[in-house]
Amino acid sequence: MRTSQYILATLKETPSDAEIVSHQLMLRAGMIRRVASGLYTWLPSGLRVLKKVENIVREEMDKAGAIEMLMPIIQPADLWEESGRWEQFGPELLRINDRHNRPFALGPTHEEVITDFVRKEVSSYKQLPLTLYQVQTKVRDEVRPRFGVMRAREFTMKDAYSFHLSDECLEKTYQVMHKAYCNIFERLGLDYRPVIADTGSIGGSVSHEFHVLAESGEDAIAFSDASDYAANIEKAEALAPTEERPAASKELKAFPTPDAKSIAELKEHYGVKPHRGVKTLIVYGAPDENEQRGLVALVLRGDHELNELKAEKHPLVDSPLEMAKEEDIVAAIGAKPGSLGPVGLSMPIIVDRTANVLADFVAGANKDGEHFSGINWDRDVENYEVADIRNIVEGDPSPCGQGSLQIKRGIEVGHIFQLGTKYSEAMKAGVLSETGKNQVMTMGCYGIGVSRIVAAAIEQNNDQYGIKWPQPIAPFDLAIVPMNMHKSHRIPDIADNLYKGLKDAGLDVLFDDRKERPGVMFNDMELLGVPFTLVIGERNLDENKVELKNRHTGEKLMLDLDSAASEIAALVKG
Amino acid sequence: MRTSQYILATLKETPSDAEIVSHQLMLRAGMIRRVASGLYTWLPSGLRVLKKVENIVREEMDKAGAIEMLMPIIQPADLWEESGRWEQFGPELLRINDRHNRPFALGPTHEEVITDFVRKEVSSYKQLPLTLYQVQTKVRDEVRPRFGVMRAREFTMKDAYSFHLSDECLEKTYQVMHKAYCNIFERLGLDYRPVIADTGSIGGSVSHEFHVLAESGEDAIAFSDASDYAANIEKAEALAPTEERPAASKELKAFPTPDAKSIAELKEHYGVKPHRGVKTLIVYGAPDENEQRGLVALVLRGDHELNELKAEKHPLVDSPLEMAKEEDIVAAIGAKPGSLGPVGLSMPIIVDRTANVLADFVAGANKDGEHFSGINWDRDVENYEVADIRNIVEGDPSPCGQGSLQIKRGIEVGHIFQLGTKYSEAMKAGVLSETGKNQVMTMGCYGIGVSRIVAAAIEQNNDQYGIKWPQPIAPFDLAIVPMNMHKSHRIPDIADNLYKGLKDAGLDVLFDDRKERPGVMFNDMELLGVPFTLVIGERNLDENKVELKNRHTGEKLMLDLDSAASEIAALVKG
Repeated sequence: MRTSQYILATLKETPSDAEIVSHQLMLRAGMIRRVASGLYTWLPSGLRVLKKVENIVREEMDKAGAIEMLMPIIQPADLWEESGRWEQFGPELLRINDRHNRPFALGPTHEEVITDFVRKEVSSYKQLPLTLYQVQTKVRDEVRPRFGVMRAREFTMKDAYSFHLSDECLEKTYQVMHKAYCNIFERLGLDYRPVIADTGSIGGSVSHEFHVLAESGEDAIAFSDASDYAANIEKAEALAPTEERPAASKELKAFPTPDAKSIAELKEHYGVKPHRGVKTLIVYGAPDENEQRGLVALVLRGDHELNELKAEKHPLVDSPLEMAKEEDIVAAIGAKPGSLGPVGLSMPIIVDRTANVLADFVAGANKDGEHFSGINWDRDVENYEVADIRNIVEGDPSPCGQGSLQIKRGIEVGHIFQLGTKYSEAMKAGVLSETGKNQVMTMGCYGIGVSRIVAAAIEQNNDQYGIKWPQPIAPFDLAIVPMNMHKSHRIPDIADNLYKGLKDAGLDVLFDDRKERPGVMFNDMELLGVPFTLVIGERNLDENKVELKNRHTGEKLMLDLDSAASEIAALVKG
Repeated sequence: MRTSQYILATLKETPSDAEIVSHQLMLRAGMIRRVASGLYTWLPSGLRVLKKVENIVREEMDKAGAIEMLMPIIQPADLWEESGRWEQFGPELLRINDRHNRPFALGPTHEEVITDFVRKEVSSYKQLPLTLYQVQTKVRDEVRPRFGVMRAREFTMKDAYSFHLSDECLEKTYQVMHKAYCNIFERLGLDYRPVIADTGSIGGSVSHEFHVLAESGEDAIAFSDASDYAANIEKAEALAPTEERPAASKELKAFPTPDAKSIAELKEHYGVKPHRGVKTLIVYGAPDENEQRGLVALVLRGDHELNELKAEKHPLVDSPLEMAKEEDIVAAIGAKPGSLGPVGLSMPIIVDRTANVLADFVAGANKDGEHFSGINWDRDVENYEVADIRNIVEGDPSPCGQGSLQIKRGIEVGHIFQLGTKYSEAMKAGVLSETGKNQVMTMGCYGIGVSRIVAAAIEQNNDQYGIKWPQPIAPFDLAIVPMNMHKSHRIPDIADNLYKGLKDAGLDVLFDDRKERPGVMFNDMELLGVPFTLVIGERNLDENKVELKNRHTGEKLMLDLDSAASEIAALVKG
């Protein structure tokens, strides 16, 4: 591609409405342009990257035995009513009416359509297992689309669905997909982690997210420093401490704390170390048979944070988790938040595993402006349950049993689920089993955010000059920058020959044939993140040399003009 | 691909809701399934064909210098308001509101989005000409979606747009695109014609449609039998007859025709040959300065048909053309349709060129139940204009001056336009010209119905057994059908080796490894239209042979087992 016949569309200034670096660089490098909030046009350079990502995803899905098909973007409401999601799904589901006023949705996902398809086309266990996938445009009407294509309203997903007679068979395909996803992210050249994840609103039991690691990532991931274990922080188990709880050595004693409404203030004004105190959070309990909700106390060590997902899974706690209103707390306890504690509390108490090994600790006295010191479990608080309800912290032992946990940030770009029968049961998707009985199929689903990967790759690979593409998804393998070509007699032919030679060798080459100053051209190629730039200049040509610059290492290599094309081809492909 | 790990989904019965053969065969061959009216899922076999078509289109567009990008499906209403089409476009434009109640449309075409893009990104004549294209899902909310993917609501289009400083430059790119389209349809292996076309609601001056020829086509196309000339019948000019009008030889005479209200009845009951009479159609005239519309008479030879498009382009006639209501006719003339004629008519009269060379002809007497014979122009009708207002008929001289016209039927699968400044002017898309002035760009646009081509190819290539794919777009190049494999000791290994050998040779192979009777397998492969079937059977293997069947010619070829793979690869690729 010659820049003179291309739309490079690079920008010098950082657009003011772009908050994160990938969004800024995608605009500046001429990869995308905004059409409306959350809606983007992919420029030629952006589309080249998108297609390379898409092709790698497709190739690995095919290798893993998944079969590609294509479902419509516009989906009839009745299928969503069958699954129950027409009501459940929030306003992210863009609902529309056609000219005959019939209701449809623009698909954010395709569980309903694929389940409808398979229940009609697959009738026998002999046709199972079956894994189908598509690469399709999805629509989510985000309340606040942001970060460019990272959270757009229209985006490209690869979504796959598998159908099975048994959970064992599902588990097997799930592992095949897990491996295929690892292959995909390896081939994309990205630093990634598969992490144990929550199944959320999609449903199902087992689930993994695939994260591209980047400091700017929205998610926190916990890793073992000694094994492959990795989990989304919301799912990582905080093991029970191995040390025994010390014996009680102090008396329970109240002390006035008029200036402490938080763990931080307790430390500042009264010298209580956070890990020597506990905090008590009051939430609503699970409804009883009369649909009445009582209160439940959650007790954590002062330096720990509540993990809402873990707490709301406890049978005593209402789900989704809801913090109790102050008036309900005051009515039940007689004290306000800031002076609460487990002693003398007449409601169910759930104590975090780590808080449970404390002895002689500090907590609110359930009287405004007063705390107790010297609290001891069992002696001072009799009825309580122990559970894992906190977020892990760095240094916690890994739940896998090996090493301790570290925390990194990641961008979720893939998610695989063992769905089970959530959709197949609601939509009556069954097959005849070997014994001739109708049996509901069990399902898996497997998504990859194809367009989001483009942004995530930039978040992970950039510097002050621009993007640093991993070779497999770079818009061009190589840029040719001839210096002051239009003033030279020999450079035009030499550049042209190299361009043809490199294209014939199968490389994607951008030939910058603009009448621009070399500095402008270098800056554009660095901004666009082309992995190699071949510089052709008079001085080097005097010695029959051309210079190859590596965008990643900054390294410069002098090549003989005659063998340059073949050497570069070997280097790029190797 | 092994059928046991694939979704073949062939049907024995012809679905009752499919009216045309391509729709029937796409359902029966397991290529598509209906999700809702005009919305389809593409099954693996269908998607394979769609992707092959798409790739050929993409390769030829790239070769022609067009640059691929991707615009969003969801388009903001304000761009459509700028171009004026938010109001003009009918209910085919699917208008939606997002969660914030802002208006959008699902794009049936992208002139507005691309013009907005180019006016922001292109500022200088130096960046022109520029041709951009995309392969994207389009939405048209058809009032009555039908014929499967031939007229669906969601479909795949390739749409390209070119931008220029001058009409000469546009003309040049238009020719390049015309040639690229010819290359595309050649490579697809389809019998097609580029035909001169009307620009319709898209606007512009020059336009060509590309038709796949098929008896079931909705459009009639006129061809010269001696040149390349071809035009949509609505655009084909009916030349003025070269023969002179004979001199009048008869007297004007009224005769009663109580039983004739049509040309056919005039022939049946009174022996008037259709080409010796004229028919007179009354339409509304162009509005005058007070927005009042009078009536206009259109006179055609009895055996000819009105061409509405030609008529409505006449300055005297209102556009779009509207037939006058009977009460308006009776009020103005005093007679009903069926007895109308040009004699004594007090309204503008437009006479078709061919009707104008008649002498001594018959027409209604503008009195119910009465006709005149012996009518002669000028003598009996003084004020009239002559124009080409009829459809051509087979045998008419070709407007190109060579040969005479024939009529065939076609399916429109491509359309190219010289748009001019319709959109760029409305949306103020200008660049700085060489002299430093702001100049509105002139535009071309170039569409191909990618998904429609799949259906059109079937309409052109089928027989009673199923589809007969042209090799370049067949879902598979070859099917391997081993007969009674599961009862044989040697066939499984031999079939497997051939499968691997043919795949390694780069062919798309479908290996039918089902436990089905050979007849069932042959029928499925014929229905699916795979160009070659390799049959492996015990009897032939005794002589170390396998049999290759050609779906198109029916020919059977005996091949040596050892060289079969290489011979087939050469045959298919050659």
